[in-house]
Amino acid sequence: MADTTVPSINTLTLSDTITQAEFSQRVLIQSILTRPDHGAGLAGQTVKVGGWVKKGREQGKGTFAFIELNDGSCPANLQLIIYADVAVLGEVTATGTCLHVEGVLHLPPEEKQGKQAIELKVVKVLEIGRVDPLKYPLPKTRLTLEFLRDYVHLRPRTNTIAAIARIRNALAYATHTFFQKYGFLYVHTPIITTSDCEGAGEMFQVTTLINEAEKIEKELIKNPPPSLEDVESAKSDVKAKGEIVAKLKSDKAGKPEIIAAVAELTKAKENLSKLEERFKLKPGIPKKDGKVDYAQDFFARQAFLTVSGQLQVETFACALSSVYTFGPTFRAEHSHTSRHLAEFWMVEPEIAFADIQDDMKCAEAYVRFLCQWLLDNCRDDMEFMVEKFDKNAIKRLQMVASTNFMRLPYTDAITILEEAVSKGHKFENKVEWGIDLASEHEKYLTEVKYESPVIVYNYPKGIKAFYMKVNPDKKTVAAMDVLVPKVGELIGGSQREENYEVIKERILEMGLPLEPYEWYLDLRRYGTVKHSGFGLGFERMILFATGIDNIRDVIPFPRFPGRADL
Amino acid sequence: MADTTVPSINTLTLSDTITQAEFSQRVLIQSILTRPDHGAGLAGQTVKVGGWVKKGREQGKGTFAFIELNDGSCPANLQLIIYADVAVLGEVTATGTCLHVEGVLHLPPEEKQGKQAIELKVVKVLEIGRVDPLKYPLPKTRLTLEFLRDYVHLRPRTNTIAAIARIRNALAYATHTFFQKYGFLYVHTPIITTSDCEGAGEMFQVTTLINEAEKIEKELIKNPPPSLEDVESAKSDVKAKGEIVAKLKSDKAGKPEIIAAVAELTKAKENLSKLEERFKLKPGIPKKDGKVDYAQDFFARQAFLTVSGQLQVETFACALSSVYTFGPTFRAEHSHTSRHLAEFWMVEPEIAFADIQDDMKCAEAYVRFLCQWLLDNCRDDMEFMVEKFDKNAIKRLQMVASTNFMRLPYTDAITILEEAVSKGHKFENKVEWGIDLASEHEKYLTEVKYESPVIVYNYPKGIKAFYMKVNPDKKTVAAMDVLVPKVGELIGGSQREENYEVIKERILEMGLPLEPYEWYLDLRRYGTVKHSGFGLGFERMILFATGIDNIRDVIPFPRFPGRADL
Repeated sequence: MADTTVPSINTLTLSDTITQAEFSQRVLIQSILTRPDHGAGLAGQTVKVGGWVKKGREQGKGTFAFIELNDGSCPANLQLIIYADVAVLGEVTATGTCLHVEGVLHLPPEEKQGKQAIELKVVKVLEIGRVDPLKYPLPKTRLTLEFLRDYVHLRPRTNTIAAIARIRNALAYATHTFFQKYGFLYVHTPIITTSDCEGAGEMFQVTTLINEAEKIEKELIKNPPPSLEDVESAKSDVKAKGEIVAKLKSDKAGKPEIIAAVAELTKAKENLSKLEERFKLKPGIPKKDGKVDYAQDFFARQAFLTVSGQLQVETFACALSSVYTFGPTFRAEHSHTSRHLAEFWMVEPEIAFADIQDDMKCAEAYVRFLCQWLLDNCRDDMEFMVEKFDKNAIKRLQMVASTNFMRLPYTDAITILEEAVSKGHKFENKVEWGIDLASEHEKYLTEVKYESPVIVYNYPKGIKAFYMKVNPDKKTVAAMDVLVPKVGELIGGSQREENYEVIKERILEMGLPLEPYEWYLDLRRYGTVKHSGFGLGFERMILFATGIDNIRDVIPFPRFPGRADL
Repeated sequence: MADTTVPSINTLTLSDTITQAEFSQRVLIQSILTRPDHGAGLAGQTVKVGGWVKKGREQGKGTFAFIELNDGSCPANLQLIIYADVAVLGEVTATGTCLHVEGVLHLPPEEKQGKQAIELKVVKVLEIGRVDPLKYPLPKTRLTLEFLRDYVHLRPRTNTIAAIARIRNALAYATHTFFQKYGFLYVHTPIITTSDCEGAGEMFQVTTLINEAEKIEKELIKNPPPSLEDVESAKSDVKAKGEIVAKLKSDKAGKPEIIAAVAELTKAKENLSKLEERFKLKPGIPKKDGKVDYAQDFFARQAFLTVSGQLQVETFACALSSVYTFGPTFRAEHSHTSRHLAEFWMVEPEIAFADIQDDMKCAEAYVRFLCQWLLDNCRDDMEFMVEKFDKNAIKRLQMVASTNFMRLPYTDAITILEEAVSKGHKFENKVEWGIDLASEHEKYLTEVKYESPVIVYNYPKGIKAFYMKVNPDKKTVAAMDVLVPKVGELIGGSQREENYEVIKERILEMGLPLEPYEWYLDLRRYGTVKHSGFGLGFERMILFATGIDNIRDVIPFPRFPGRADL
């Protein structure tokens, strides 16, 4: 179909003329500096740019200033030259200052052309957002990522957090593009859930009960509830008024008289019911039989923040066949490690007519696609990461993008680890068939033994969730974990048990109640289908890509015990 | 940048050979039926398909059956022919049955070629997921959307919910593609927030306090706390043991004797501290000075589910210049209308160096892009909607995609509405300068007066939020609403107040405390920038596109007062 209004994302290649940003009064610095000629071909053009001062210095005894300006569209800064007749130099040079300027692009003097290909001679300062350098919380001196965590609202202005934001953005769009390309439908699974999916796991509760209780408490202080006596007296009043009406009627009194008496009775009844209702108001959270009465909560039952969209997205896989979810998930664990967050993002595809082999194939293709995408679309940010944080970051992406992932049955993995132990390798955790692999074991396999991504599959039944497909050996389940250098486990997945009798048995075996899983059992009861899926921890992928050590630095607004800023 | 590995979604056109689904043992029915020849050119090919039976009927006195199979990849069904020597026909024809089959594509008999271009003669049934038609909750008879809401886990198997799921998926990917195309970065704003952004609005609370209190209560029942007497007696014990040690020391007793006495003292002290700790355990939610003690909650303060990512995404706009967020938002309102959900998705772009005019331009371009995308990519699903729900659905998309949106200052809108009233048009809500436009007013403007999308802007200051840019007239703010036929308000946005003094004044004027907004004020205090943004209610967009009436039917898992299934 002809599409005149909507140019495809792929046609947005750089042309020889500069493009005005579509919804903002400027050109993106990226559209100047990331051209193959780094902008040199644009000399002579007049443009508006906007951004924040990274570094400014007065020169020539205060006659002009050099300013490095960044607008977030790319890691590189555009160099501005502002003369003293265009602006008060003291107002435009402080780090953090926002500038919106118009100027002429020109080639720098020959001796400086190694450093930058183009610079902007400012003709007019359109707007200044000033900074008092004595008060600005982010001074020029090198700041630690830990320090920046106390300024989540300002840290996007630093090179590192900005680069991570661009990499995170690229990985998110790559995720959607990968699954869309293969016909998967994006399904928004719920954040608020009434299913405690894993049967374990600390969950956050979502409630309006505390708020309601506080409202009632305030109200009762302002306006104390009636006493039992008040209620009894109102009851007597109703009785008395009722007797008057009865008497008037039996006395065949006049109509107006009876109407007036009935009106009095109605008023008394209304008063009683109001008093009775207020009499029932109790301070505190409503209870029934000693337990919290969730029938009075917003959803008329106990509700939580989801720990995974998997079970819910299965309802769509068992109807639309290839689906995925990508959204926030939550754990109320008191972990203070560099690997845990209370709120984090997960990507969870679910595929019908797919077994564990298909699942591994999909996981491998997806991870390699993400790596190649970063190499193709975030090269400059990745180079920044290599320079500042992890010299192997690009090499790691290249290796993963171009390597076939090893497939390793769990039982073989244990044999390999036992061999390592017998050759003198020390692990803190004991190695034997039946254990869940610890991080040190995973790292040994992927970093030492194979130096490449490894998919371990067919885990012992006892250490895995009830919904995983039991293998014919009855001892293992068709589960798989993708292990990669630097972070260890990146993906966990499985073929799902599609046999109604077997999964019911597994739920009971694990001591879980059947009732909350009836809907999940329905998927097996009616038109059941072989299906598989996995989950990728999105922040783990960013840690893997960037080489950043602490997960709190790769999510815009980290939530962990004791902290939820903004 | 050269991109060799990542084929664009646009290059994924259908070829003359059929493509195996990449991660699943079949071909997608879409790849057969949505070709320009509807699959006729594939006759003779052997393929595997999987899906669910929409309709099955035995024919030729039980010698074979016709089956309509759907796998969710497109609205159309593939017709299967299964002979009685390949399967027990009674096992494969019930609606809802899952079939994974291998067969040969062939042209149907000439007289039937109007109905379908290709059908599959099944050679082998690979797997059957059976259905007992007497128990299956979704019988063939026409089901209402309301009935289906009681079966959220099965309703994706219906044509309507499946079509909505594909449209929703398309709109989500179109959203990302639009913003990525223009260089916007996708930012994951937090779900759990400690900022009550609008200063109003009913919010859900996120807590672990109730759970912790219940744990303590259980523990105290199993293992009652010590009495004050127990604690006092333990204190005396410590004192006595301490005196013994002191005496032994002053008596210069033998070392072993002193060591033994010190050990006794240590034990007594440990016992005391344990008792004191358990003595402090109180049933119920921890309180301090009569109020809930949130210092003991997970985040050490009161936390909520976000009502909007706008304020947080501004921190990224004021650093990376063009950003957007797309995620779930929440309202704990007791609304039972067909327009309200407790959990819904919002798209919120935020643009630096952009004023209200740029903002309107972006909103218009985005909405038109979405409409064109559906026309280009979801034609068959849209045709289904036209047939079943709203005969104008496609026309509406075409009109919006091709129409310049009217720009109408609020003051002019009021004049127009007043004229309508004077000509005899009846509104339930009074029309006068200063009112917030009611739904009936919005519909009059977009459906009656202009019959096209209208953007109303420059609203009275008094009815809008504190963060909106005050206009030079001091009476209005640079706010805008996009109104479209069928749903009325689709988008609300504004230029943000970037002047530190003015926004501080506005916060105080509205009776809000400054402290929670200090971080937001920082964005104006340091390097402030002119910026604008808007929010689109994603479900409203789906209602607009599909013509569906109830918002509970356009989100996979609706949450509203009293209900949060799964």
